[in-house]
Amino acid sequence: MKKISLMGATGSIGTQTLDVIREHPHDFKLIALSVGRNINEARKMIAEFTPSLVSVQRKEDAETLKSDMPAGVKVMYGEEGLIEVACHQDADILVNAVLGSVGLNPTLQAIESGKTIAIANKETLVTAGHIVMEAARRKGVSLLPVDSEHSAIFQALQGEQDKNIEKLIITASGGSFRDRTREELVGVTVKEALNHPNWSMGAKITIDSASMMNKGLEVIEAHWLFNIPYDKIDVLQHRESIIHSMIQFHDTSVMAQLGTPDMRVPIQYALTYPDRFERPRAKRLDLAEIGLLHFEKMDMDRFRCLRFAYEAGRMGGSMTTVLNAANEAAVALFLEDKISFLAIEDMIERALNEHEVIQNPDLDTIREIDERTRLAISQWVG
Amino acid sequence: MKKISLMGATGSIGTQTLDVIREHPHDFKLIALSVGRNINEARKMIAEFTPSLVSVQRKEDAETLKSDMPAGVKVMYGEEGLIEVACHQDADILVNAVLGSVGLNPTLQAIESGKTIAIANKETLVTAGHIVMEAARRKGVSLLPVDSEHSAIFQALQGEQDKNIEKLIITASGGSFRDRTREELVGVTVKEALNHPNWSMGAKITIDSASMMNKGLEVIEAHWLFNIPYDKIDVLQHRESIIHSMIQFHDTSVMAQLGTPDMRVPIQYALTYPDRFERPRAKRLDLAEIGLLHFEKMDMDRFRCLRFAYEAGRMGGSMTTVLNAANEAAVALFLEDKISFLAIEDMIERALNEHEVIQNPDLDTIREIDERTRLAISQWVG
Repeated sequence: MKKISLMGATGSIGTQTLDVIREHPHDFKLIALSVGRNINEARKMIAEFTPSLVSVQRKEDAETLKSDMPAGVKVMYGEEGLIEVACHQDADILVNAVLGSVGLNPTLQAIESGKTIAIANKETLVTAGHIVMEAARRKGVSLLPVDSEHSAIFQALQGEQDKNIEKLIITASGGSFRDRTREELVGVTVKEALNHPNWSMGAKITIDSASMMNKGLEVIEAHWLFNIPYDKIDVLQHRESIIHSMIQFHDTSVMAQLGTPDMRVPIQYALTYPDRFERPRAKRLDLAEIGLLHFEKMDMDRFRCLRFAYEAGRMGGSMTTVLNAANEAAVALFLEDKISFLAIEDMIERALNEHEVIQNPDLDTIREIDERTRLAISQWVG
Repeated sequence: MKKISLMGATGSIGTQTLDVIREHPHDFKLIALSVGRNINEARKMIAEFTPSLVSVQRKEDAETLKSDMPAGVKVMYGEEGLIEVACHQDADILVNAVLGSVGLNPTLQAIESGKTIAIANKETLVTAGHIVMEAARRKGVSLLPVDSEHSAIFQALQGEQDKNIEKLIITASGGSFRDRTREELVGVTVKEALNHPNWSMGAKITIDSASMMNKGLEVIEAHWLFNIPYDKIDVLQHRESIIHSMIQFHDTSVMAQLGTPDMRVPIQYALTYPDRFERPRAKRLDLAEIGLLHFEKMDMDRFRCLRFAYEAGRMGGSMTTVLNAANEAAVALFLEDKISFLAIEDMIERALNEHEVIQNPDLDTIREIDERTRLAISQWVG
């Protein structure tokens, strides 16, 4: 019985993590969870999974929840609550499925307390990869990828030696606007951007997919998780999202992980690693039925955010903190209909241009740059 | 420095094994080799690689060779010579690249002497898989696959557990006649059959590819190498030969090995396993350049030999010995222009129909059935 704590339970990865736990009631037990403001969902989860600790974002929601909780369920809130979930002493593994750089501090605390972490929160690695990975190395903590691309690479790496890697090949569906030119992106709506062709995901990551920033964040995440220089990370457009990513070794052999687009596969793999559990009712890949797999070179002029991510990653230091904060802020503005889709790119570009890179920033510097970037973006909207 | 003995040095796998050795002069040393009748080629190989033992098929060729050999090169011939190469006391690994069931006895002798074997000689496993695998288990000997499909499966299996395998998916290019109907196969020439779309291989295996018997033999080989029942081995048509084969695990995840069609990759992997050596000048896979990968269901009525192989494999015992011997004999007759292409299938079908299966046959029984089958086929031609 593996005991799991889950940060970000009501999001897309969170609810699919609960699916995996539900499918294997004798193998997994949810012992702690965090949610944002959706306390009705939280109530249902508590009733079904009977965790011993729940954390919500706001004090008032915590107090509402406490009033009708069964005995033995501790209710907390805010960053303190999130950290308590992240570091729960009975947990064998933490699933970090929160969105954005808010996941950074709890991740670091979980590492300090020696937890194995299944990490879906890519922004944490983008904003402070050098600090997170150094802490994980120092404490001997495993960071198990949950993103389908990184899970594919991680699976392909089993039984292999890092020294033999020639490059990582991260596949990209192209997102909801892959067949549009830049000119056709003028005036696209939030609803259009949220219509991803292959994956059902949360709003922020779906917008990131449409702008190709998601792939950029994944490149940076891969750089940190697998300790691979940017020159050895390629992105390949593959519209069917069947090959989830690949490793090319220096003998020219390429190892790949394939499957139907279903996030429960990489989530479950992180929870069962190095074993694999059955998924008897899940859809199997049928390549004969699919018939064709397409591959195209990624156009860095068409997808400017991907280029920004490579550039920020190569400059290193605080540059990826700015990239991530500017993106989070700009995407939020787009989702609120306050800026256009293409303005996301422009704002990120401006934020990067205006920033003087600081190499090896400490945590306080990262927090300060993160806040300053978000503030600047909000001021540009006026 | 790994010391290698090589059976079948002048064949397609043999010469490509020499390429691999040539590319890594500080890692590999050829110490023994066998050839058939091509003693001119043998002379060149001896001059280049200075092995200490050479075996040829015929006594007269051995005597010719002896007359102009440098000191320290031992020359032998016939089955005795082949076994001496197979069991050479200084060899760390034997590459068995001979063609046909003639490789069986040397393989068994090499196993008895505890050699690791890189096996390209699939007929040995088809004709007597139960004996070979039982001997390998008893002696703790590793059989490392060299066929590109089995190497792909073997690579995908690294870091995984056998219990989690749901099925093997062996890919098939379709061979030189994949786009022809059965009606269009009437009267095809040897030259047409030898024109394989993707792989440059020996004559027998290229004919086997055209008839799809090669895939059938590979299914049986996979059954023995990976100890997987036939119901869990699928064949998938994939005309580009880029995905070399796959494993589907019971969590629905599919692991695959990809690459340009180049036999030196799986040969080298068998020689370096579990490590991988560089191949700096070799062509890399470029999926964007390839653009499309095609997959189709395999038609068992169109490709009767594949169906025969599954049927013979499922019946087990001596049935696969008959399948292999009938195929070897019929293909030889086709290559000599004595029978038509479609008569290969008819002869195999007749041989299987006329055979009463013997379960768990011993080596003498296998040899007797093999000879009897070849004799019958030769008599049917009249």
